[in-house]
Amino acid sequence: MSDTSGTDSGNKPHANTLRILGVDPGLRITGYGLVDIANGKQTYVASGVIRTDSGAPLPDRLHTLFKGLSELATLYRPHVSVVEKVFVNVNPQSTLLLGQARGAVLTALTFSGLAVTEYTALQIKQSIVGHGKAKKEQVQEMVKRLLNLPGIPSADAADALAAALTHAQTNPLISALAQSDLPQQMFKTRVRKGRTSWR
Amino acid sequence: MSDTSGTDSGNKPHANTLRILGVDPGLRITGYGLVDIANGKQTYVASGVIRTDSGAPLPDRLHTLFKGLSELATLYRPHVSVVEKVFVNVNPQSTLLLGQARGAVLTALTFSGLAVTEYTALQIKQSIVGHGKAKKEQVQEMVKRLLNLPGIPSADAADALAAALTHAQTNPLISALAQSDLPQQMFKTRVRKGRTSWR
Repeated sequence: MSDTSGTDSGNKPHANTLRILGVDPGLRITGYGLVDIANGKQTYVASGVIRTDSGAPLPDRLHTLFKGLSELATLYRPHVSVVEKVFVNVNPQSTLLLGQARGAVLTALTFSGLAVTEYTALQIKQSIVGHGKAKKEQVQEMVKRLLNLPGIPSADAADALAAALTHAQTNPLISALAQSDLPQQMFKTRVRKGRTSWR
Repeated sequence: MSDTSGTDSGNKPHANTLRILGVDPGLRITGYGLVDIANGKQTYVASGVIRTDSGAPLPDRLHTLFKGLSELATLYRPHVSVVEKVFVNVNPQSTLLLGQARGAVLTALTFSGLAVTEYTALQIKQSIVGHGKAKKEQVQEMVKRLLNLPGIPSADAADALAAALTHAQTNPLISALAQSDLPQQMFKTRVRKGRTSWR
């Protein structure tokens, strides 16, 4: 994968495992993180960033984001995706650029057949750290602890992993599925139903 | 094409013809227009709009735009694409939404292998009407005249056709190609070269 850098520790998800792809969209750097949920446990799969060349034309940069995320979806086969909901920036031009990056990210995820759930930064911080005013470093530290990582993940990757973990923790259906011992076929059907309704 | 409405008057472009796809991006309505350039003449091919369901989740709406434009690219086989460059809106939330729609549009075009050239509304108005302060109705009227249309096109379709016409009129390489009698093979090679450099 030429456009992305990150760490690999697995490919397709095992049976009875829900794999969540979290994405923190940005035009220059888009963070991603994959987490597996099974038997009430959350396991780190991979994380990293997709960088775009700031000197390249905008359509090319958006294509890099689209291509990178499509490749991640093909490589890791996540079941669902989670994207941080953004708010308008102080600088309107930055808002427009972020919006375009976000458009490319969401398009890549739906094109890959993934349901997309959005959480605000506040929801993610509350879910991961316990309060909405948590600092970036606190999120990174908690992501490290929750996933038993050997080191602190980069801020962009940590935000993406935090989004994935938030989805695992706040969605009752996922929690139930992850903790249950349902047969594989039943699990698959339920996940599919969820995908349809969350889109 | 379930997501798009418009008029068809041709499918693949003829040899020695440059087909330009113009797009006016918007989350609710994205206008499109296709124009053929050959032998110094510009010919209307098709135009219309892609509408998204304002009650649907954002990822679904962006997917509708992506799918609609991908289908148009497959159906009409344009050689290049042109998109109106947008500026920040007074309302920051609208800027973010427009940015996301624009991201989906640009992603669809590059995914379809199309080079994308961007023009500002000012450039388009100057090229089509002759001055940058032209009103919407003047652009619609001039598009009708330039393409010998039987009626006034809708504002969104007219903006997209105007973008395509601007590209035909302002790009010296395209004008030269359209007016020349170059053998087909040479024409194809030149167009390809152009596509690479404009991206």
